[in-house]
Amino acid sequence: MRQLRQSQNRKKPRQGEYIMDRLKKQLNFIMEVDKLKEIFRQSIVSSGSRRENDAEHSWHIALMAILLSEHANERVDVLRVVKMLLLHDIVEIDAGDTYNYDEEALLDKRQREEAAAKRLFGLLPDDQRDEFMELWEEFERRATPESRYAAALDRLQPMLLNYMTKGKSWIDHGITSEMVFRKNRHIEEGSEALWGFTEDMLGECIERGYLKK
Amino acid sequence: MRQLRQSQNRKKPRQGEYIMDRLKKQLNFIMEVDKLKEIFRQSIVSSGSRRENDAEHSWHIALMAILLSEHANERVDVLRVVKMLLLHDIVEIDAGDTYNYDEEALLDKRQREEAAAKRLFGLLPDDQRDEFMELWEEFERRATPESRYAAALDRLQPMLLNYMTKGKSWIDHGITSEMVFRKNRHIEEGSEALWGFTEDMLGECIERGYLKK
Repeated sequence: MRQLRQSQNRKKPRQGEYIMDRLKKQLNFIMEVDKLKEIFRQSIVSSGSRRENDAEHSWHIALMAILLSEHANERVDVLRVVKMLLLHDIVEIDAGDTYNYDEEALLDKRQREEAAAKRLFGLLPDDQRDEFMELWEEFERRATPESRYAAALDRLQPMLLNYMTKGKSWIDHGITSEMVFRKNRHIEEGSEALWGFTEDMLGECIERGYLKK
Repeated sequence: MRQLRQSQNRKKPRQGEYIMDRLKKQLNFIMEVDKLKEIFRQSIVSSGSRRENDAEHSWHIALMAILLSEHANERVDVLRVVKMLLLHDIVEIDAGDTYNYDEEALLDKRQREEAAAKRLFGLLPDDQRDEFMELWEEFERRATPESRYAAALDRLQPMLLNYMTKGKSWIDHGITSEMVFRKNRHIEEGSEALWGFTEDMLGECIERGYLKK
């Protein structure tokens, strides 16, 4: 009876303490993660004017996930991929962005990000905290079709920005084609089509002098 | 923007000409929409340091869609909502951002955005062009549970930023609580729970002097 009355009262859910408690936690998290807009990456946006931040990057790759899913090696659950991509960089609010070519910073990346995931996802209601933690772990492990495809997009996007800015961040950091091929080769595990495209694009970048041989 | 060169020397048989043509179109679109990162809104990010851009805003509301779907008035297809939110502002690359309280600019908004949708979504393969056009139209019309919920998030998020920045953009533009209530009331059509929260939050904003009565 009590439950029935509650569901009939759905029109005034803000009167339910349980729902309001959940909503408060969810919105606190949503406000906290606004800080992702201040976490700047090494990538340069296509206008060449400034570095890209994590929120923009996450939007871009989530949109890519929707448009390119036909090119994934295996059939993927697109919503799961999009969720992973929208949340995967949130840990960088506490842990900072780690440049993919900075071998020293990569050493303690995992440790820093794990603490960040605990604090940040810990702001959510328990079920959503667990779901986000699992999705983040899945993304990091790259052991499912969804996470392999998601990781491919996460690696392809900064290369597209380099292509559009004539290799600006590669040149600024003295990155060579050998490094780029080595660090991004796992795109192939998520999408052979996207890796095929990447190889062509990198060849063109070398040819045009955007990327050192 | 430079068009991607037609790929040659495809290694994999599955990457026939048809697939490569699709992929080229998709990636040209993906590179073109990078410009969304340069479309600035009237909202101020939580640090108070600068205006928010459309790409960041889109990321934020897509994440909200995932976390808050239990509060939608009707059961919604979350992937459809997320798609709408990730693409709904892309038209502003050509049409510019129209401030929700700028009544004059709102007059020809539809016309400007329709032309933009045709050009931008027109870069995609035909099936995806049609899908994106439909999703954008659906978002604009607010006639489905998904679009009503999506619109609620699109209206709630800038108010959260105002709350976090002590009403910075409301004060800068001389926005009154009457205007805010009138312009955002349709949140209730997507989520009564979120509208209930909004009413409380706006009450608090008035009390604290973030929003003129």
